[in-house]
Amino acid sequence: MAARKIVVIGGSAAGAKAAAKARRLDQQAEITIIQGGPHLSMASCGYPYYVGGVFQDRKMLLATPTGVVRDPAFFAKTKNIRALTLTEAVAIDRRAKEVACRDLGTGRQLTIPYDKLILCTGGSAIPLPAQGGELAGVTHLLSMADSDFLRAVRDEKRASRAVIIGGGLIGVETCEALRTSGLNVTLVEIEPRILAWLDPQLAGLVANHMRGRGVEIVTGKGIQDFLGEAGKLVAVRLQDGTFIDCEVAVVATGVRPNVQLARAAGLAIGELGGIAVDGGMATSDPDIFAAGDCVEVRHLLTGLKVLAPMGDLANLQGRVAGENAATGGKIVFPGTIQTMICKVFDFAAGAAGLTEEAAARYGFDSVAVVNASPDRPSFMGAGLLVSKIVAERSSGRILGYQCVGSGDVSRQMATAAMAIQGGMTLDRLTGLDLPYAPPFSLAIDHFIASAHILENKVKGRFKTVTAAEVKARIGREPRPFLLDGRGPDEYEALRLGIGEHYIPLGALRERLGELPADKDAEIICFCKISLRGYEAALVLEAHGWTNVRVMEGGILAWPYEREK
Amino acid sequence: MAARKIVVIGGSAAGAKAAAKARRLDQQAEITIIQGGPHLSMASCGYPYYVGGVFQDRKMLLATPTGVVRDPAFFAKTKNIRALTLTEAVAIDRRAKEVACRDLGTGRQLTIPYDKLILCTGGSAIPLPAQGGELAGVTHLLSMADSDFLRAVRDEKRASRAVIIGGGLIGVETCEALRTSGLNVTLVEIEPRILAWLDPQLAGLVANHMRGRGVEIVTGKGIQDFLGEAGKLVAVRLQDGTFIDCEVAVVATGVRPNVQLARAAGLAIGELGGIAVDGGMATSDPDIFAAGDCVEVRHLLTGLKVLAPMGDLANLQGRVAGENAATGGKIVFPGTIQTMICKVFDFAAGAAGLTEEAAARYGFDSVAVVNASPDRPSFMGAGLLVSKIVAERSSGRILGYQCVGSGDVSRQMATAAMAIQGGMTLDRLTGLDLPYAPPFSLAIDHFIASAHILENKVKGRFKTVTAAEVKARIGREPRPFLLDGRGPDEYEALRLGIGEHYIPLGALRERLGELPADKDAEIICFCKISLRGYEAALVLEAHGWTNVRVMEGGILAWPYEREK
Repeated sequence: MAARKIVVIGGSAAGAKAAAKARRLDQQAEITIIQGGPHLSMASCGYPYYVGGVFQDRKMLLATPTGVVRDPAFFAKTKNIRALTLTEAVAIDRRAKEVACRDLGTGRQLTIPYDKLILCTGGSAIPLPAQGGELAGVTHLLSMADSDFLRAVRDEKRASRAVIIGGGLIGVETCEALRTSGLNVTLVEIEPRILAWLDPQLAGLVANHMRGRGVEIVTGKGIQDFLGEAGKLVAVRLQDGTFIDCEVAVVATGVRPNVQLARAAGLAIGELGGIAVDGGMATSDPDIFAAGDCVEVRHLLTGLKVLAPMGDLANLQGRVAGENAATGGKIVFPGTIQTMICKVFDFAAGAAGLTEEAAARYGFDSVAVVNASPDRPSFMGAGLLVSKIVAERSSGRILGYQCVGSGDVSRQMATAAMAIQGGMTLDRLTGLDLPYAPPFSLAIDHFIASAHILENKVKGRFKTVTAAEVKARIGREPRPFLLDGRGPDEYEALRLGIGEHYIPLGALRERLGELPADKDAEIICFCKISLRGYEAALVLEAHGWTNVRVMEGGILAWPYEREK
Repeated sequence: MAARKIVVIGGSAAGAKAAAKARRLDQQAEITIIQGGPHLSMASCGYPYYVGGVFQDRKMLLATPTGVVRDPAFFAKTKNIRALTLTEAVAIDRRAKEVACRDLGTGRQLTIPYDKLILCTGGSAIPLPAQGGELAGVTHLLSMADSDFLRAVRDEKRASRAVIIGGGLIGVETCEALRTSGLNVTLVEIEPRILAWLDPQLAGLVANHMRGRGVEIVTGKGIQDFLGEAGKLVAVRLQDGTFIDCEVAVVATGVRPNVQLARAAGLAIGELGGIAVDGGMATSDPDIFAAGDCVEVRHLLTGLKVLAPMGDLANLQGRVAGENAATGGKIVFPGTIQTMICKVFDFAAGAAGLTEEAAARYGFDSVAVVNASPDRPSFMGAGLLVSKIVAERSSGRILGYQCVGSGDVSRQMATAAMAIQGGMTLDRLTGLDLPYAPPFSLAIDHFIASAHILENKVKGRFKTVTAAEVKARIGREPRPFLLDGRGPDEYEALRLGIGEHYIPLGALRERLGELPADKDAEIICFCKISLRGYEAALVLEAHGWTNVRVMEGGILAWPYEREK
């Protein structure tokens, strides 16, 4: 039998992984990677960290952990894979089972036959409807060339002001990179908030942290155009007519799947514009697979197709496509819960599953609660965690979790992603056995505490109000009685200043006379994290007040301006 | 109706939590904590970090995050809980529903009636069968007083040599504390290895790390006696007659449940010596609950009772006991998978579920694999992770996971603990959607990669040999052909030196002539982490060699001496 011919179009995350996996399973196959760009297997998620000076040697983005660049020679020698870089796949002839290519250097045409074809054509920036994008200084951060340009901005101090357009993951990471490179940075987001994969409260906390590190954030405004002088960017104009002077603008408004080849070949394209694949990453042609940013995949909670252009999923999908292409087997990529995490200066921000907003949009009857706490005992130098857990009301099944803060967000998100993918319910999460020692967590881990708090809320013990509701409520008469249950040292250091009364929890039982005489008056309790706020509310209820609620997450989860 | 009387014996983790939870659910109850010692709600897991100088203010071990010491006044004012410290519970009269107590200061007897009683009597050090334990300098690390003593050793340079007896969690943490305090430290463990909750290979890697930080480790030897001069410790004598000079000895050979009160009251005691409780933490008397180190609980994988004296479980059990005592409800503590983690200098070490040894002991047909990798991309300053994943062969259900190294072990262990408690199987774990960004993990997270590798092993693609098998094998003729698939720079920096041949993977296909002519010769491949070793083995098999295996985890998981 002749050696199986496996052709992979695209040599970044999914393509390189698919080819390597196919090789491990079939030593005889002829495996070819066709890559339009000059590089292979780029660590593209690392671009912001190269731009930001976290490391100096650009080669590390292209090399194995032992420092060998993954170029065509590497693929040939260590993997016995032919990798054609600077080679564009022009068309797929499904009848002849051939890919027509063009060598971008020589212009030469070549035709590569396949038995199995794997499309890993990735995604491209969604074009911005704004003139001037061709000006020097306007860039994306999606390629080695983009990285080189922005790194040179840092190293050669070519600019002092930058505008980032788009407040998603890459936009926020790029903000950090350029801000820590010494630039004045403005982030412009057309939606009302940055990081749309977080509910507004948590996104607001991240925005506050970014502002605290000197980033200007403009939301709810789009870009009108880029303005230049002598071919160089000098400013961006917003749709409201305001100008922001800058020498660099990074467009980070998202990517969309590259499906031109697939569409021209008559393969099914999904309704979101990605290549349609089944669980085994096969397209509508059983001899053609697809993986990575070019496909749409199943969301495990909604059952709907989603675009999830993430490097980790690309690798997992590439592995599945590579195995099924090489063996004719049918292993499965199960789908995604759109788990996210990003570093934002001294914060991290993560989400998995559905936000409360998304849960409502998809018709779930959900219940959620915000929790703020240290990530470990204060004597170990604790960081802050503010999270939101979302569960299905009827079943208790966890639908989503978001977490931001200076603490160990990564562990929280890993725990939550496992809870969601394990289909676990609230009653189980309240008794989890998680790794505890003071260097790593609180005795009751923040995630478990979130489950406790949500259970208390579900059981009607913890009657809550969100920060947004408090913010709206204090603008209306009659104003609620706001009780901050902390002591003088604490409120001198940190306070909302929204008309709250200070009665330390320890003195509350003796100072009940200071509460409203009307036992039906609206009372809102809180403290730094609202644990004492909760206990205060329980005391007041026991003394006959009937309309007492606790502000979820307390002062540390308050996303608006504070007095102090 | 008269207020319910809830009495809690013991005011450390479980007791304080039970009392606080009961208060939140019943504002009218009379709640009393009876505590033999002077302190309440001590952060006892933090003692080693105080001893080691991680923080200066001892009060932090006793205070809330905002710095308020949790003394009787705090409990009275903020919780409306009466806490009697230095008060010993002497007997329980179940018929009269009373606890007889003695004030240790005044000697006064008092009787406290209860409707519901919660026993949180904790554990005590297992006595060491060695004379001389009364000498000045011999201590445990189980109390504030012990901490104060060892901290004074640090601060006042009272000793230059210490012996730690017992290589479990507290022993290892105490090693670090005293070593970083400048003492010469010897750890003595009677078993063949330290950290018995790890399989030998991973325990060996931790021991190597400790030796690298200057700790002497003596295994397989018990203590004969403590030797003193003028009432002060000067040495310990091992059972083999050797002496180790020291001025301080810390006995950390474990704790056992304090059940005297429960037993005298006629409550059922389990076969392991802990108070027997049901899932709701009720003892054999439905009006008496128990929680914390004094109970035995169900292991979720074996279904058997275990002792699991951990601070996090004590809190969770206390919460359940407190709620059920206060409400008459029946919420459940589900049980434990004995999740562990500890910091060991620049390493962390964790385990959850069953080791491979334990799985065999409990009759599981298991399959396991060792995996070594960086925890994140090298350009982000990666740490090392070496792990072992254990699954049930027939079902693929995850039974256990262990992880050690300088990388983010905590996230690995949280992920694994969730996989085990979620009852997840290997085929599901190979496609997990976990939080990925370069500051936090590899694109294919170490845990997912472990699942991939184990799946390859189960499917017969990855034929392996453990480091221990290699170590044993190289002592016998005919010696296997050992192939290290790395390049010259790498093996100059790091190598086993066990007679291996060096053929870089990239040159292997051209240098097959250097392999044994006998196609049935035994060949063992490896590299730094055995990924290239795996690919080399696949190449050799494709070229007709029939007896090729890969050493799991490669050089980084080798727990024995290396040449370099």
